[in-house]
Amino acid sequence: MSKTNPGNFFEDFSIGQVIRHATPRTVTEGDVSLYTALYGSRFAVQSSDALAMALGYPQVPLDDMLVFHVVFGKTVPDISLNAVANLGYADCRFLAPVYPGDTLSATSKVIGLKENSNGATGVVYVRSTGTNQNDEVVLDYARWVMVRKRDVTAPAPDPVAPDLPTVVAPDMLGAACPPIELDGWDADLIGSPYRFGHYSRGERIDHVDGMTVEEAEHMIAARLYQNPAKVHFNQHTEAEGRFGKRIIYGGHVISLARALSFNGLGSAFHVAAINGGRHVAPLFAGGTVYCWSEIKETVVLDHRSDVGALRVVTTATCDVPCSEYPGKLDKGYADGVILELDYWVLMPR
Amino acid sequence: MSKTNPGNFFEDFSIGQVIRHATPRTVTEGDVSLYTALYGSRFAVQSSDALAMALGYPQVPLDDMLVFHVVFGKTVPDISLNAVANLGYADCRFLAPVYPGDTLSATSKVIGLKENSNGATGVVYVRSTGTNQNDEVVLDYARWVMVRKRDVTAPAPDPVAPDLPTVVAPDMLGAACPPIELDGWDADLIGSPYRFGHYSRGERIDHVDGMTVEEAEHMIAARLYQNPAKVHFNQHTEAEGRFGKRIIYGGHVISLARALSFNGLGSAFHVAAINGGRHVAPLFAGGTVYCWSEIKETVVLDHRSDVGALRVVTTATCDVPCSEYPGKLDKGYADGVILELDYWVLMPR
Amino acid sequence: MSKTNPGNFFEDFSIGQVIRHATPRTVTEGDVSLYTALYGSRFAVQSSDALAMALGYPQVPLDDMLVFHVVFGKTVPDISLNAVANLGYADCRFLAPVYPGDTLSATSKVIGLKENSNGATGVVYVRSTGTNQNDEVVLDYARWVMVRKRDVTAPAPDPVAPDLPTVVAPDMLGAACPPIELDGWDADLIGSPYRFGHYSRGERIDHVDGMTVEEAEHMIAARLYQNPAKVHFNQHTEAEGRFGKRIIYGGHVISLARALSFNGLGSAFHVAAINGGRHVAPLFAGGTVYCWSEIKETVVLDHRSDVGALRVVTTATCDVPCSEYPGKLDKGYADGVILELDYWVLMPR
Repeated sequence: MSKTNPGNFFEDFSIGQVIRHATPRTVTEGDVSLYTALYGSRFAVQSSDALAMALGYPQVPLDDMLVFHVVFGKTVPDISLNAVANLGYADCRFLAPVYPGDTLSATSKVIGLKENSNGATGVVYVRSTGTNQNDEVVLDYARWVMVRKRDVTAPAPDPVAPDLPTVVAPDMLGAACPPIELDGWDADLIGSPYRFGHYSRGERIDHVDGMTVEEAEHMIAARLYQNPAKVHFNQHTEAEGRFGKRIIYGGHVISLARALSFNGLGSAFHVAAINGGRHVAPLFAGGTVYCWSEIKETVVLDHRSDVGALRVVTTATCDVPCSEYPGKLDKGYADGVILELDYWVLMPR
Repeated sequence: MSKTNPGNFFEDFSIGQVIRHATPRTVTEGDVSLYTALYGSRFAVQSSDALAMALGYPQVPLDDMLVFHVVFGKTVPDISLNAVANLGYADCRFLAPVYPGDTLSATSKVIGLKENSNGATGVVYVRSTGTNQNDEVVLDYARWVMVRKRDVTAPAPDPVAPDLPTVVAPDMLGAACPPIELDGWDADLIGSPYRFGHYSRGERIDHVDGMTVEEAEHMIAARLYQNPAKVHFNQHTEAEGRFGKRIIYGGHVISLARALSFNGLGSAFHVAAINGGRHVAPLFAGGTVYCWSEIKETVVLDHRSDVGALRVVTTATCDVPCSEYPGKLDKGYADGVILELDYWVLMPR
Repeated sequence: MSKTNPGNFFEDFSIGQVIRHATPRTVTEGDVSLYTALYGSRFAVQSSDALAMALGYPQVPLDDMLVFHVVFGKTVPDISLNAVANLGYADCRFLAPVYPGDTLSATSKVIGLKENSNGATGVVYVRSTGTNQNDEVVLDYARWVMVRKRDVTAPAPDPVAPDLPTVVAPDMLGAACPPIELDGWDADLIGSPYRFGHYSRGERIDHVDGMTVEEAEHMIAARLYQNPAKVHFNQHTEAEGRFGKRIIYGGHVISLARALSFNGLGSAFHVAAINGGRHVAPLFAGGTVYCWSEIKETVVLDHRSDVGALRVVTTATCDVPCSEYPGKLDKGYADGVILELDYWVLMPR
């Protein structure tokens, strides 16, 4: 029998099954530097120990999306190696700050199964959890993928669809954000004079700048996250594939959009939750990513006097500037749209 | 009103104005590794804790040019986002060593203003200062850029031109260099048998080796420095621009030249000051950088018995080897010259 | 006289000569992150402090091949700058674990010399040793290269050929591996249910996955190792060379193959020794590396009850999947083969 990992097929999953993923990872200052070098993020709390400490952190926390990518990467060999499509994610909450030196592990529980009518594939819903070396949960999210069956004649399981929120409730936000000492908030160093109260529902922000992506960059990123999904790395097989080229890890687009969003959302120092995301189209090397954001809600948090929450939908495009806010149309999306991400950020009040 | 940063225009600057730049940065061992990986520098003092400590440093100091790039990067959003051209820099002095764990902040003061006769642009002179978390100044330099006016009808300010030295005076050198314990100087480990006394005024050194630059590399570098200048990153707009392609950050060329100069200047363990620099032509990805140096002065420092100072002019080229020392001509520069950098290095006596 | 390093020519070497190489290097967490980002290795012992500590390491050790590349890189300026060909290496043993913060130095001793019959070149055999800041030897290996003569009329030295083992003796293995606490071995986290006893002599494993290499990646790697061999970096001269393009450092292929071999050899947490290696053909950017392994021997170690040793021969290819185990033929190698590496790994019993 082969000793290589064939990945799990649809019939390998069962409701309630718990999978402990391989390759725990100690995240370090080296990972932080690479993350900065890959996206150029300028959010100051994640850049300066001195500033982070002035605000109440013990040191610079890791960028939230770096935590997401590391945990996500661990789930790939078990959950999505035979995935036909990543269908979505929901109820993603950051639950504890992560610091250099912490070791992240990941576990997934199967929470839904539904065979497709073609009998060849099915949808698997998992709840994945990232924990640190003290068994504190740092990240928790639901995700569903379409997975091939090994044997099309295998019987279909009873369909189970989990109940997932469209939007993370505001009273669930902020667990990964220590109490912020607002005296330490220095608008010059933060790079934005705008705080929670300056943003309004319905406000749209073109983040202006564009970033072109190279093959070496997205592969360096996905390997940093130890994400082994084959489509990102193998030009020899992808040349024969649907697109003729390597597909960039969707999380790379999210991190680019988050970094670009600094220009207009510079005070949004923490991503507290991701409500959902849609990778509308794949991104390929050579493409230039732009993005814009709409403020969907502004919520004063009952349990926090220091920070408020903005629900933001950021739309990223490829080779299309965002001064005209290209996005969802009655049918589909405007040309060039590659990502729609719905998430909560925290800002000082 | 838009919340994105439009940058400052010529009429936004006034003499004596002080700008505190955003995004302080804790520099780490991760940054050091990336810097090594981007340029391949082999200067041993910046490579080995054991050697650095034998010479009197408490640990490996950061490469001087890494410090420069981080501080410079912070000034870009406020000073040069609307720059038409980077005209020059002068009187750049390294004033304290920087170690992993230090947090760098940057401030600039406007020291000169001169509207151009076209009424559409003007020259802004600033003195920029990098400080660490203890408010010690680690770097100080003057820089002037040509900046667009927002409104061509805005009145011209009284012209003020700062008095800047052509060459940093030798007695100002060495503040960032601790007393060097010459017993710890090990020529084998340093990689060069030559010390201060072996170099002569007028001596020319072809650094022999060439380094080809890729798009991914210079973008990774500029993002590591959190330098958001648009021309480095956006192929979608640069394709329509003057050159049809992304322009490599000038500091990337400086760091390549400094790393290549190890072959011939291996004992020049510290850049003490930069007298001035001229980016004669832009560099683009795919180009191969070569360089050569001329020793302009050799100065025994009255205040230091351990080290002497060499004033070096390094000329970098693209796709032109330097065995014939291509450089300044009566009119302009020889074909292929991209950089002329005039600086002081320290060497053990 | 030029101050640049011309490298050593054949007649510069003499039997018994000891060369202390330049640029000692403190390896850090930054180097570890870059190594992960370049190869995507998922061996858990090198990824997680928590897991490494559960097994008896004080912290995550550096990947063995990273140690090799750093030590090897130091030898290049003195040993192989004028090399026509890297002919082979043997008897390579990892003798102590290396941790972030350690400073590595390298020394080589000339152990063999043999002028070629053409009188223009000769073979130089060296034994190279890497030591840490406490003068403990961490790595030791023999290597032989074909080096040009400076002067073809220089007299030939008496030929000396060192006696080198084809295979490192099993009782020499394991010095860099602390006693492993098998209670801490967690197959889920390791990512493989297979241990020493599951592997059989003659077993073949296709490692399935392929990795395409970009110019930026292999140059970043070689610079990280401070390996200044010109052929990796200079497209301007290589365009006129034998291949018309830059040649990828052979060690880059080894590290790619080692990382890919996780899929099938996930429990092989430590490379204890390299018996020999053959770079059958050069690799160029754009190529996709695949590999497969054959288990040559399975050896219970008399001196260790915790781990056993597998002698593995891994064959890497370019643009050829390995499901049919392409390798050595009666005459030469199958098309696409670029590397054959014979080495010992340790696995828990």
